Amino acid sequence: MIKLAHGSGGEKTRELIEKLFLPAFKNPILEKLEDSGRLNGIAITIDGYTVKPIFFRGGDIGKLSITGTVNDLAVCGARPKAIAVSIIVEDGFPTEKLEKIVSSMAKISREVNAPIVTGDFKVVSKGEIDEIFIITSGIGEIFYPSLGADRVSAGDRIIVSGPIGDHSLAIMGERYEVELPQGFESDCAPILKLVEAITQVGGIKWMRDPTRGGLAAALNELAKAINKEILIYEDSVPFRKEVLNFCEIFGFDPYHLASEGRFIAVVDKEKSEKILSELTKFPEGKNAAIIGEVREKSKGRVIVKTKFGGLRLLDPPTGELLPRIC
Amino acid sequence: MIKLAHGSGGEKTRELIEKLFLPAFKNPILEKLEDSGRLNGIAITIDGYTVKPIFFRGGDIGKLSITGTVNDLAVCGARPKAIAVSIIVEDGFPTEKLEKIVSSMAKISREVNAPIVTGDFKVVSKGEIDEIFIITSGIGEIFYPSLGADRVSAGDRIIVSGPIGDHSLAIMGERYEVELPQGFESDCAPILKLVEAITQVGGIKWMRDPTRGGLAAALNELAKAINKEILIYEDSVPFRKEVLNFCEIFGFDPYHLASEGRFIAVVDKEKSEKILSELTKFPEGKNAAIIGEVREKSKGRVIVKTKFGGLRLLDPPTGELLPRIC
Repeated sequence: MIKLAHGSGGEKTRELIEKLFLPAFKNPILEKLEDSGRLNGIAITIDGYTVKPIFFRGGDIGKLSITGTVNDLAVCGARPKAIAVSIIVEDGFPTEKLEKIVSSMAKISREVNAPIVTGDFKVVSKGEIDEIFIITSGIGEIFYPSLGADRVSAGDRIIVSGPIGDHSLAIMGERYEVELPQGFESDCAPILKLVEAITQVGGIKWMRDPTRGGLAAALNELAKAINKEILIYEDSVPFRKEVLNFCEIFGFDPYHLASEGRFIAVVDKEKSEKILSELTKFPEGKNAAIIGEVREKSKGRVIVKTKFGGLRLLDPPTGELLPRIC
Repeated sequence: MIKLAHGSGGEKTRELIEKLFLPAFKNPILEKLEDSGRLNGIAITIDGYTVKPIFFRGGDIGKLSITGTVNDLAVCGARPKAIAVSIIVEDGFPTEKLEKIVSSMAKISREVNAPIVTGDFKVVSKGEIDEIFIITSGIGEIFYPSLGADRVSAGDRIIVSGPIGDHSLAIMGERYEVELPQGFESDCAPILKLVEAITQVGGIKWMRDPTRGGLAAALNELAKAINKEILIYEDSVPFRKEVLNFCEIFGFDPYHLASEGRFIAVVDKEKSEKILSELTKFPEGKNAAIIGEVREKSKGRVIVKTKFGGLRLLDPPTGELLPRIC
C-alpha cells in the first residue's frame, strides 16, 4: 500500500523509485535520477504542486509551481525556454483565487523569460481534490553541461546559497499556528540568476535544490551516488534562528526542512571562495556559506560535525514529515 | 466561481482561456491555442488525467496518460522524444494498482519510442484526492511543420481516422451501468503511425484529436479560427451503433463524445482520397471517412447535413457532459 512516506522525498520514495519506476521505465536518462532529464542539449522536468495552504507567507501555489520548475532546470545547468502548465481545481473553486494564482505564475514566468506556451485545465467534482493542484513542466537549454555526481571528488566543497528551511517554516508555521516574526516568509524564488553567476566562475560539479526532505535527503542521495563521505560543519549551516527554535519546540530536524529558493552546489575547492563571493553579491545569496566537504572516509554517508566537535550520522528522512509542503 | 463546465472543453473552457489565461500568460505561442506549443522545431504539451474509473475497457489511466500526450504531439506534426510524468496518489492507494498503471505507461512509452526521462511522485492524505491523478508532459520533434488553421481554405475536406466516441462510451457505460457488447472498448491508442503515414502524402493543413467536447468542440474551434463554415455530412460520420444507441437512450449528442485514439484532419481536396486510402490500410483506420468540407457560407459555424437532407447548426458543448472522462 502506498503511504504518505512514499512521497516524502526520503528513503521510502527512493525505494519506490528503485523498485517500481526505474525497472518499468528503464532508460539511461531517467536512471541518472537528476532533477531534470537531459538529452541533446535540452533538459526537461516536471513537478506536481499540492502545497497547503495554497496562499502562504511569501508566495502561493502559483508562484511555487513556476519557481520550482525553473529551479529544477537551473540546478541541471539549464535556462528555461518554455513552460507547460496543467491546473486541476475542484468544482466551486473561487475565480478570484484562481486569478491571483494565475497572475503569480505569469509574474515569475516573465521574470525568468520562460513563456507558458501550452496548458491544460480540468475541473473535478467537489471532494475529489482539495482545492487546486498545479503541475508544471519545463524545457530548458543546457548552458552548463558539465554537471554530474560522477564529477565529484574528495576535497570538493559543499556550498549552500542561503538559509535552509524557510519555506517549510512558512508552511508548517501556518499549519501549527506558530507566531512568526513579521517579515518572515518562504524563500520561494527563482535561483536562475545566482546559478548563472556562479557558472561563470566554473568548477561546479553538482547542484540540487533541497526541497522535500531538505538537506538530509539531497546530501544522502549524493553521498550514495558518489560512494564517498559528505562532511557537514554544523556551525556553518545558515539556518535562521526562527527555524531552529521551531524545530526545537516541535521536535523536527532542521536538516529535513525544505527550501524552494536555495540550492546546494558541490564545487572545486580552489574555486569555492570565488563562488561564495559571487553568491554573496546577491541579496538572496548574502547568507551563502561553505558548509562542508567531500571525503573518502565513511563512504556513502553524511556526517555532521556538531558545534561541540563531535560527529553524528545524518540519515535521510524516513517518514513523511508533513505532506503537501510543496 | 469555477464550475465543472469550465473544464468541459466547450464554451465555458474557451471563455476562461480567453478571459483569464491568455491575458495573464500573453505570448504568441500560447495564443495559437494548439494542442502543443511549438517553438524552434520542438513541440511541448501537457495534460492532466483524472479519468474515473481508473481501469476501464481497453485501458487504464496509465495507458491514457501516455497516449494522450503522444497524440497531442502527433496532431501538431511532432514525434515524441521524451516524456515527463507527475503522479499524485492518495495515502493508502494499493501498490498493485500503481504497478499495473505504471506498467501500462511503460508499454505505450516503448511502443512509440518516447522514453519517460523524468518524473515526480507525490502522496496526499486520504480524501484530498480521489485515488490517482497523472499528469504527463511531452516534448516532440516537429516532422510536419506546415500545419495551422491559417492554411485551411474553402473546399478542403474533413477526415476522421475512425469511429468517434468509443472512449466516452467505455467510461460512461461503466458509470451508467450500461451493458456493452463483449469486445467493445475505448479507442485509447497512439495515432502516431497513422499521422506519419498520411503526412507522407502531404496536403494536410490542420489536425486535432477530438477528446473532451468531441467533434462538436474541435470543429467549432476550427470554424471560429478560420471564420468559415464547416459542413458535416451526417451519414458519413463513423459512429458505432452502440454509441448511437447509448446517446439515444440517455439523451446525449454523439458529437459531444470523446475519443482518445482518433484524429480529425483538414486536408487538400485533391489529396483527400489518397489520404483516406492510406488511413484505411491500418486496422485502427479501417473506418476512416471523409465527413465534411470547408465552405464560405455560414462563417464561423459548424453545420450538419442530416440523413434526411436538412441542415442543423452544431453548437459547441456548453455544460459539463460528464467530468473525468480523461
